[in-house]
Amino acid sequence: MRNYVIAVDLGGTNIRVALVHADGRITRRISRPSLVREGKARVIDSLLSAVEELYQENYEAPQGIGIGVAGAIDLKTGTITQSPNLPGWDDVPLQKLVKERLSFSAEVFLENDANAAALGEYWKGAGAGSTTMICLTIGTGIGGGVIVNDMVLHGADGMASELGHITVDPQGPRCNCGNTGCLEALASATAIQKSAADALRAGHRSSLKSLWNRDPDSLTAKAIADAAYDGDDPARRIYQDMGTWLGIGIATLINVFNPEKVIIGGQVSKAWELFIESMQEEISRRALRVPARRAELLPARCGDDAGLLGAAYMVFSAKETGGKELRG
Amino acid sequence: MRNYVIAVDLGGTNIRVALVHADGRITRRISRPSLVREGKARVIDSLLSAVEELYQENYEAPQGIGIGVAGAIDLKTGTITQSPNLPGWDDVPLQKLVKERLSFSAEVFLENDANAAALGEYWKGAGAGSTTMICLTIGTGIGGGVIVNDMVLHGADGMASELGHITVDPQGPRCNCGNTGCLEALASATAIQKSAADALRAGHRSSLKSLWNRDPDSLTAKAIADAAYDGDDPARRIYQDMGTWLGIGIATLINVFNPEKVIIGGQVSKAWELFIESMQEEISRRALRVPARRAELLPARCGDDAGLLGAAYMVFSAKETGGKELRG
Repeated sequence: MRNYVIAVDLGGTNIRVALVHADGRITRRISRPSLVREGKARVIDSLLSAVEELYQENYEAPQGIGIGVAGAIDLKTGTITQSPNLPGWDDVPLQKLVKERLSFSAEVFLENDANAAALGEYWKGAGAGSTTMICLTIGTGIGGGVIVNDMVLHGADGMASELGHITVDPQGPRCNCGNTGCLEALASATAIQKSAADALRAGHRSSLKSLWNRDPDSLTAKAIADAAYDGDDPARRIYQDMGTWLGIGIATLINVFNPEKVIIGGQVSKAWELFIESMQEEISRRALRVPARRAELLPARCGDDAGLLGAAYMVFSAKETGGKELRG
Repeated sequence: MRNYVIAVDLGGTNIRVALVHADGRITRRISRPSLVREGKARVIDSLLSAVEELYQENYEAPQGIGIGVAGAIDLKTGTITQSPNLPGWDDVPLQKLVKERLSFSAEVFLENDANAAALGEYWKGAGAGSTTMICLTIGTGIGGGVIVNDMVLHGADGMASELGHITVDPQGPRCNCGNTGCLEALASATAIQKSAADALRAGHRSSLKSLWNRDPDSLTAKAIADAAYDGDDPARRIYQDMGTWLGIGIATLINVFNPEKVIIGGQVSKAWELFIESMQEEISRRALRVPARRAELLPARCGDDAGLLGAAYMVFSAKETGGKELRG
């Protein structure tokens, strides 16, 4: 019985590889630095050697290999078309490259990391039991994944559910994507840091001031959340405002998808109590009654494993459905 | 061979019933006033008598009956849960009521009218050949329908794709839904009329002034478009601004769905040349490169028949797939 999958989470900082069972258990993990600067070949070698290590330990080939990658994927060819986190990885046919070099025979599946995280939450996390759900991963940027009728929303080029780049304020700050007022430019960790720096520069009295004076880089979203939990007013307001912007974006998504669940993950979601109230208030104000009442707002449950679980689920569900459901 | 369907478009003003063939031809139509004020029973009688009339003419039962209704539909029970255009029609099990009273045996399918219009364009209009597309119907309000992987996006309660109610300007004008700055509040015929009235009140010099003085009700979106085509500056600016708001909304939808086509129908879409430029400009500025390049922007092609064609296609495609595809 080959009832396990090798799941890979290929990010700009780390390559994480895990052995995932059909019930979602993870029984073995390997994590290594991606060393992106040493070039593509080196990264792929490193990925493959970790995969082979898990294979050797298990004597038998896995059901398949699922890879989540931070970047745009051409699903038809299994190619990374572009990746902000893997500079220079334009048009890399990773699916083929991995499959060809394996010492054993296995199908390889590729997916965008935010979609993989959504799938992970859908399979074994806060999304379990739903058929239509939205997952937002809030970190340095904001990633999005949408499940519609138990399928990942891919769009024509696998570029759908770029939920960080919906416009929530047409006059808002510039986003890395070139647009102004994207959700990501107003509600990501980066946006929170920027708001705090702006508040301090504007002379607001805050316990963050001394931290900022010592080292501006230490003014992280986490440090700002800590200050907010300690009652620091400017820090609290920053998270409240972030919740307002997030609520505007989620209200739009609720009116568009009428989802059963909206799941929020990523490092910033740990500050849940700091933004949930203003977020909910904005959703009640802006979303239509029936879909607003339907949509459960939940923190993600799989943490850093969401992407690995989703990568594994791609393989398991492809075997069940002949690949139709997820590759369609 | 029962290769025809009876399609119904039940609106607040008219009931339209048509005989639609498997190739999309419409060979017979009946249109009558809905007479909503005379009560539900009267409207349903009128709908049924038109359906029976088409049945009698054809000697044999149709493959089924497809009904598009302006309102929120519970697809599982075939119930109109709420309708802005049919006041008092809360929780009306129209599917059952029609099926029970037919003199012949036929499946009855119910769908929201904006979804039916999207399906019609997908089947026989500007969306033909695409698998993922968005359809906006711009009239008094803005209706939306989305096709994802050849299926209508329904959401948990059949309330998905309320595209008129995505927030494009959080500080914008009040919408009928209670929110502020909805696309509908900024880019519908109603919004265009309001902008013109505001411009005239503010003393802008415009050829519309005399029209307005004679009869404020004659200041329709069509009259404003006519003035714009004749070179009236305030009228032109109103349509340009409308295109900008529409572009902001569509850019968000492109980043969310990565569709092959975005189709714009409804009465306002006839003023295509007046808003297309500012709309495209805004989309280029705000949507991500790959999905923006992918999405074709097209005027709807089926006109008022979109809803009838979509209602018919529900029946034809349900027969093909055992109902799974569209009812799932």
